[in-house]
Amino acid sequence: MDDLKHLAAQRDAHDPLASCRERFVLPEGLIYLDGNSLGVLPAHVPERVADAVSRGWGQQLIRGWNAEGWIDLPRRVGDRIARLVGADKGSVVCTDSTSVNLAKVLQAALAMVPERQVVLSDTGNFPTDLYIAQGQLGQSGQLRTVAHEDIAGALTDDVGVLMLTEIDYRSGRRHDMADLTARARALGIVTIWDLAHSAGAFPVELRQAGADFAVGCGYKYLNGGPGAPGFLYVRPALQDRVNSTLTGWLGHAAPFAFDPEYRPAAGIDRFRVGTPPILSMIALDAALDVWDGVNLDDVRAKSCTMGDLFIAAVETFADQYGVSLASPRDSALRGSQVAWQCPNGYAVMQAMIDRGVIGGFREPDIIRFGLTPLYLKYADVVAAAEVLGEILRDRTWNQPRFRARARVT
Amino acid sequence: MDDLKHLAAQRDAHDPLASCRERFVLPEGLIYLDGNSLGVLPAHVPERVADAVSRGWGQQLIRGWNAEGWIDLPRRVGDRIARLVGADKGSVVCTDSTSVNLAKVLQAALAMVPERQVVLSDTGNFPTDLYIAQGQLGQSGQLRTVAHEDIAGALTDDVGVLMLTEIDYRSGRRHDMADLTARARALGIVTIWDLAHSAGAFPVELRQAGADFAVGCGYKYLNGGPGAPGFLYVRPALQDRVNSTLTGWLGHAAPFAFDPEYRPAAGIDRFRVGTPPILSMIALDAALDVWDGVNLDDVRAKSCTMGDLFIAAVETFADQYGVSLASPRDSALRGSQVAWQCPNGYAVMQAMIDRGVIGGFREPDIIRFGLTPLYLKYADVVAAAEVLGEILRDRTWNQPRFRARARVT
Repeated sequence: MDDLKHLAAQRDAHDPLASCRERFVLPEGLIYLDGNSLGVLPAHVPERVADAVSRGWGQQLIRGWNAEGWIDLPRRVGDRIARLVGADKGSVVCTDSTSVNLAKVLQAALAMVPERQVVLSDTGNFPTDLYIAQGQLGQSGQLRTVAHEDIAGALTDDVGVLMLTEIDYRSGRRHDMADLTARARALGIVTIWDLAHSAGAFPVELRQAGADFAVGCGYKYLNGGPGAPGFLYVRPALQDRVNSTLTGWLGHAAPFAFDPEYRPAAGIDRFRVGTPPILSMIALDAALDVWDGVNLDDVRAKSCTMGDLFIAAVETFADQYGVSLASPRDSALRGSQVAWQCPNGYAVMQAMIDRGVIGGFREPDIIRFGLTPLYLKYADVVAAAEVLGEILRDRTWNQPRFRARARVT
Repeated sequence: MDDLKHLAAQRDAHDPLASCRERFVLPEGLIYLDGNSLGVLPAHVPERVADAVSRGWGQQLIRGWNAEGWIDLPRRVGDRIARLVGADKGSVVCTDSTSVNLAKVLQAALAMVPERQVVLSDTGNFPTDLYIAQGQLGQSGQLRTVAHEDIAGALTDDVGVLMLTEIDYRSGRRHDMADLTARARALGIVTIWDLAHSAGAFPVELRQAGADFAVGCGYKYLNGGPGAPGFLYVRPALQDRVNSTLTGWLGHAAPFAFDPEYRPAAGIDRFRVGTPPILSMIALDAALDVWDGVNLDDVRAKSCTMGDLFIAAVETFADQYGVSLASPRDSALRGSQVAWQCPNGYAVMQAMIDRGVIGGFREPDIIRFGLTPLYLKYADVVAAAEVLGEILRDRTWNQPRFRARARVT
């Protein structure tokens, strides 16, 4: 126990990312291991949003579309995200929600393979991805789901689209994007990667992998604030050959010509639809400043070491109470989270939150903890494991106030 | 000329809405007649947004979804908008952009009339509405457009969906929602109304008209800020019989059960998709406070009188310079804007903006002015007409700096 705390202190003392923590507002007394649900507020964001509201909107009014550059914000923010996901400039646009973006790229992908209206995914994919596929395929197509480990074997030549979330939202298990994309490509299968738990969590290499499409989330590891707009990637060589069926005016080649016929814009802009939520997007844009000067390899290294330490700490403090690791033990196979199966997991997590340690719960019995190297200390995960152990030992979770389900779990 | 100024002063002195102006931040020295593009900042919004950022996001973090009620915000804001558009509680949800919402209700409407995949609209509809229909209809259906005045005659029994924007974005001409909806209904035609220039501009009576679907915009007369989320209405009796094809997790009956199969939520919630942009939605929610205690009949009466005065003033100051009224002279046939055809309209509007009078320009030659009775004075429109007259008289607009087109016009 003391060994682990000592180890954590040592690691914190030599952490090349230690100073990044100051870029964030961390509520007093809280250990926040839920940055994979909603990232922490970067310290400079309130001022930037306040300026956008009072000066940008309040004083510039409609002139803000030109003077503040709002019209190009989806592209500018997209380019900043591109750098984090290994994509070229001009291949990412920030727009809509992840779900709506997935619908757009899925339609575009399905149109590339008219004779192969089969979408392959894994059974553990985040439900919204499966739902979107169900809604978009309609009666003409098929959503085929297999277990995470069976994806490679299920890549057959009747499959048209491979649609995967790189990191499993419960277990944190990682698909091998480079390998699966290469295998898919060899069979003429179009690939769509959901980077919800990847962007900002570790280096992503969309270009290098040759992925066709990707979508992702602005409010998790990108710290863009609650419900921050999502993003969407289209491989550059595809951009002018594919179309969105959500043909809104800001995806038009000349939105302000007010032409009655839709003509898609060149490049990634054709995947824009309506007027974007500027205040939320400005918060995300500002939040991306925290990545200035950050090496994503350092982020990945710290995330892996931190996950290993967390696992060791939970095994020290809590293993005798029936929790079992739900994430890969090998950090190379994980994203940036660690999860356990835990009996009465919902109540256990509520009791942890009551003690100031915030993680997440996912049905049926998963407690999960996001590792966000920019603002977490190694000491945080050891302390969190200790709190978990105490709650399980003392059965603190067995109180009605912790068992009563809230609207959002 | 003096008569008009005197009349304006008198009207301002007896304006029952005069005190509402204090609810807004009006930039010094500006006459803002573009609230139909982007509404003015309500004075209390900066504080509410700052609180949402620093306390809601910054301190509550993920707990905000329950503690701050973010999860129900789309319904709460929807209910507040419902009151302004004559709709029942539970029939409006605030979500996505107007364009994405239109795609959702259009798919739902088309599914109600499988044998009649013809969408009727008018040629002057806002392009994004026509584009969305083009994208959603695909090859199986037809978008049929006729002139504004020919809509009633074009309601034939092969038409499945009537999709109209109540107020023409250029001329401000108003469709008769009650009459056209009744005619459509008699022929089994599903109706979709775009209320972009209606909600907050005058009393709308969706329930009374029997409209099936409606969509609308949060950033014009509702003053929700740049790119504020849109809204969507479904007639209560239809809600459980129609579906969205954008089947995202927040439209699921039990989003936090993480069921792999999509099951639509009861009621209007099934038209939600992904995680909404909370900061932008909180700005809109706060902005709706300006309607507290406001009688929409007063708003309509002032808007009509103000439009009539504006027309009289332009005819006094500017008529000899080739402008011609593009809006109906009869206020009953207008929305809450007045527009003129104006040679060199783009440059003329830039010259007006340079003089502190902000209106809008729309291709090819329309200058348009939004009338927002909550924060405009009668004196404003007389002053604006005088500035227009001076610019036309002095040919101030004929300078390169006014003729050079900006990115957003």
